[in-house]
Amino acid sequence: MKFDFVKWQACGNDFVLVNAFNGEDVSEIRNNAEKICDRHFGAGADGVIFILPSKVADFRMQIINSDGSEAEMCGNGIRCFAKAVYGAGLTTKRKFAVETGAGIIIPEIQEDGTVHVDMGEPILEGDKIPVAGFGNGKVINEDIIVDGKNYKMTCVSMGNPHCVVFVDDINEIKLDEIGPKFETHSAFPRKTNTEFVEIKNDGYVRMRVWERGAGITLACGTGSCATGVACMLNNLTKRQIQVELDGGILKIEWADNNHIYMTGPATKVYEARWVD
Amino acid sequence: MKFDFVKWQACGNDFVLVNAFNGEDVSEIRNNAEKICDRHFGAGADGVIFILPSKVADFRMQIINSDGSEAEMCGNGIRCFAKAVYGAGLTTKRKFAVETGAGIIIPEIQEDGTVHVDMGEPILEGDKIPVAGFGNGKVINEDIIVDGKNYKMTCVSMGNPHCVVFVDDINEIKLDEIGPKFETHSAFPRKTNTEFVEIKNDGYVRMRVWERGAGITLACGTGSCATGVACMLNNLTKRQIQVELDGGILKIEWADNNHIYMTGPATKVYEARWVD
Repeated sequence: MKFDFVKWQACGNDFVLVNAFNGEDVSEIRNNAEKICDRHFGAGADGVIFILPSKVADFRMQIINSDGSEAEMCGNGIRCFAKAVYGAGLTTKRKFAVETGAGIIIPEIQEDGTVHVDMGEPILEGDKIPVAGFGNGKVINEDIIVDGKNYKMTCVSMGNPHCVVFVDDINEIKLDEIGPKFETHSAFPRKTNTEFVEIKNDGYVRMRVWERGAGITLACGTGSCATGVACMLNNLTKRQIQVELDGGILKIEWADNNHIYMTGPATKVYEARWVD
Repeated sequence: MKFDFVKWQACGNDFVLVNAFNGEDVSEIRNNAEKICDRHFGAGADGVIFILPSKVADFRMQIINSDGSEAEMCGNGIRCFAKAVYGAGLTTKRKFAVETGAGIIIPEIQEDGTVHVDMGEPILEGDKIPVAGFGNGKVINEDIIVDGKNYKMTCVSMGNPHCVVFVDDINEIKLDEIGPKFETHSAFPRKTNTEFVEIKNDGYVRMRVWERGAGITLACGTGSCATGVACMLNNLTKRQIQVELDGGILKIEWADNNHIYMTGPATKVYEARWVD
């Protein structure tokens, strides 16, 4: 198998980008995503992202996870995608429409090289997130007992479920122990991502995440958005904040039109030709 | 920073190979080895290997580990090195001399693409391995109590210390729990690598390794050599065996000249240009 690719990372979430905008057949690459993403035998990545043509937008983004399954969307991946198509000269626009499995997403490349992304509206109804026991009401600062200990949770869906827990000292949280217990708690019929958040001030928070199905990761775009929403629902911060993750910093804004906007970096690491 | 590199792997041990045979200044690359090896922000590798000129051999191999420290030698790395220099046309010989931190090593590329390497003579004197309490005697099938349980160990140095333990069922061993307890046991003044080995037949064994300073790895070239020596010292196998590792299979021979020969694969994964 031989093909050209470019490696990108955004807050430590890393991707193999493959350009198939001109209709190249990428079925063999897609079928080998697991091998390509292997961190010892392959290139190593969280996923393979294909740049494809679209009938309803400027581009179509397809993400194949490192386990071979397809992801609907990825907040860090879309920023890499946006800079990759612009950098490759596939568009001269800095703001364009990308068809994803979660609908059309509009990234905009900023003057400073960061990417500003409209992540859509948050979902707050308990039965739609879903969280058991709250009907269609909101789940804000509610009690949950996990592993015999009481926590206060605020729940938000950004297309995927998030349980946000504010803590006094994030370094005290044993994420690898408590994360899986939240993930599989009976309160979450479709399991949950869990974000532990320490408020530094009304414009800056520190977040660590346990991702559903993936465990501890360096960054989570939708988790950062959910964190911002939870901060604002609890009147802990302003409507525009910085979220410090293990892999970097994302700016999150909950705007007057009810949309969440995420802004963050994306970096090209190397250009390559697969030869194995 | 911009430079060309080639990614290679051998039994899942993976390396960024940089050609500096013509005297290119690679000090910036060397100083950034930790960043280059980072598996989320960089290319991801166990180490960066430089192809350098030598005054005493055909080539010089320098290995910088993923933590920025320098390694003397690496059994899997030398196979990648050999195929890389041959594949790049830096030599037309299939057998040549490579200067390493552990002396001159002679790899030979076989017709089937595997690489046959003279790994030198094993060291069996207890005080040279080193293992405490055996003076300059051999340490063959001796008792050691680790975490309250009795094991039989055979100790070998291949330039680095190895403690080989034969077990009936390798799947019963909790390597992540018992490995670090062997590594830091008082019997090993300079700590130790530990290999758990299940004999399948007199020509085939299965080995899993806890590497000193690195933990569980997919493969260990010197550990495979030490395993072969321990098998033969205990009359459990023939003088030429296959060692099945998590990352692949290596052939180990203890020849009449007292040298250990290791034969195994090495694979080029991709050719790249770093641009970050």
